[in-house]
Amino acid sequence: MRVCIVGCGAVGSLFAANLAQLDDVEVWAYDVSVDHVAAINERGLRLSGAGDVVGHLRATADAAELPRCDYGIVATKAMHTAAAIESTAQAFSAGAVASVQNGVGNEEAIAGYVERVIRGTTFPAGRIVAPGHVQWDVKGETTIGPFELKPAAMGEIERLADACTRAGLPTNAVPDARGAQWRKVIFNAATNPVGALTGLTHGQVCEDSALRRLVSALVDEGKAVCAAQAIELDADPEALIDHAARRDVAYGHKASMLQDVEARRPTEVDWLNGGIVRFGREHGVATPRNEMLAALVKGLERSWTS
Amino acid sequence: MRVCIVGCGAVGSLFAANLAQLDDVEVWAYDVSVDHVAAINERGLRLSGAGDVVGHLRATADAAELPRCDYGIVATKAMHTAAAIESTAQAFSAGAVASVQNGVGNEEAIAGYVERVIRGTTFPAGRIVAPGHVQWDVKGETTIGPFELKPAAMGEIERLADACTRAGLPTNAVPDARGAQWRKVIFNAATNPVGALTGLTHGQVCEDSALRRLVSALVDEGKAVCAAQAIELDADPEALIDHAARRDVAYGHKASMLQDVEARRPTEVDWLNGGIVRFGREHGVATPRNEMLAALVKGLERSWTS
Repeated sequence: MRVCIVGCGAVGSLFAANLAQLDDVEVWAYDVSVDHVAAINERGLRLSGAGDVVGHLRATADAAELPRCDYGIVATKAMHTAAAIESTAQAFSAGAVASVQNGVGNEEAIAGYVERVIRGTTFPAGRIVAPGHVQWDVKGETTIGPFELKPAAMGEIERLADACTRAGLPTNAVPDARGAQWRKVIFNAATNPVGALTGLTHGQVCEDSALRRLVSALVDEGKAVCAAQAIELDADPEALIDHAARRDVAYGHKASMLQDVEARRPTEVDWLNGGIVRFGREHGVATPRNEMLAALVKGLERSWTS
Repeated sequence: MRVCIVGCGAVGSLFAANLAQLDDVEVWAYDVSVDHVAAINERGLRLSGAGDVVGHLRATADAAELPRCDYGIVATKAMHTAAAIESTAQAFSAGAVASVQNGVGNEEAIAGYVERVIRGTTFPAGRIVAPGHVQWDVKGETTIGPFELKPAAMGEIERLADACTRAGLPTNAVPDARGAQWRKVIFNAATNPVGALTGLTHGQVCEDSALRRLVSALVDEGKAVCAAQAIELDADPEALIDHAARRDVAYGHKASMLQDVEARRPTEVDWLNGGIVRFGREHGVATPRNEMLAALVKGLERSWTS
């Protein structure tokens, strides 16, 4: 099978490099960073940390170079989904495209350009340390399933899950991936902006009793928004928070939103807390704390330009 | 009369330099910054901006040098009140001591060392630009009145108000200064941490509709805490916010808490939002947003040392 990673940042690189280990998978990567693309083509894509891997694959910043692919795996930041899938959609005219991104609303954007869409969520995390080199901070599961409005077939979803799992990224194919996705959205929305506003790592946020109370209050708002949509969470987001706070797991991991803030890049807060607020509003659920954090992070972004 | 300014930072300097203009007032200043003290003694204390003044006064970092004073005006950061008044109390054995500080709880700390205490709140603001030189950003009124548990006499409060007013700092003496004090506490608690977390000035915070909604929700919590204590606000804190947002007033003023954050100094959040939370808890009023902001700012402070 041929797979194209759309957006080869930290998470995209974890998929690209690991899938490139398989003999039966041909991996392409589309990314707008010409330095990263050049480094990957010259020396391969290197992961270090939780796993040490060098993946040999073909990377390009020119979407017209992409061949027809069986699968797309979109891993851009949420604010770049529409532009990235618009550029690359011709490669997926006969394929199915999965999102493994943060937040809610990405599958809707992909479905604007592609016929068969896979809803997905992934827990592995890392950061780019240099062009062609990604630090793999955290291992974890991936869950994929049909996107309700333009579903991929269960069979092709299972084939993708099998390839990812064999490549070292354990992946479940499920008929309803909303529970897993919202569990991660709730987790991210409850912890990332707190890290981004305070400069603290996941572990530091969670061991501070006042911040942990705030995190749990944010989780409760997210759970209420899920309940109003009849989405059954696959597990309690609180367990993820406890897990992330463990000193042997992700204690020192800076949330991607904190990485964005430190680099003064726009964050994904509109797709995390902002998404919870939007779905809450549609379903009559008040989400004052998520609204407050979204406003603070947007204000912080604004301070860089004003 | 002889007045000692205890804590000659931005606000203390505004009182010290202006009061030093009066022939019938002898001004002393106590401050822990030896550079600031030396500059004041050598060249006088200079204000520029909203008013251009050079005040000649006697400054010291050694509390034992202070003579007996008729009045103290404490203007330290709230976290330094107890230490500052403990050091200087001998100078006020026959005098009355006013607080013109931010937050709630300062008069209680002063009353631990002094017999006659004046509750006060002041709006002028500025920042130290160099030892001996303070930028005066914002003019405004001061309100003083007896502290209920160890009250100064109304006559001596009026005498101090008269001196401040003649010196160019309009000051009202009132029988109950709680309404003015809580108005400013509510204003500061609703705007300062938002500026501190986002890096935005007062004006930028207030013209952002999402942040302004948050600010108003914080104001509402503070008003509820006042109502539960039967404190009648002397005016609506919302009017202060509108005023501060005006381009010709304090639009570009960075809240003192943002100045603290940029300098990585501990903030006064425990005496602002933390004070509203404490009084709220004592009087059965929920203050979730103030609690949330206090936790975020304390987390930010923690990130500098961890």
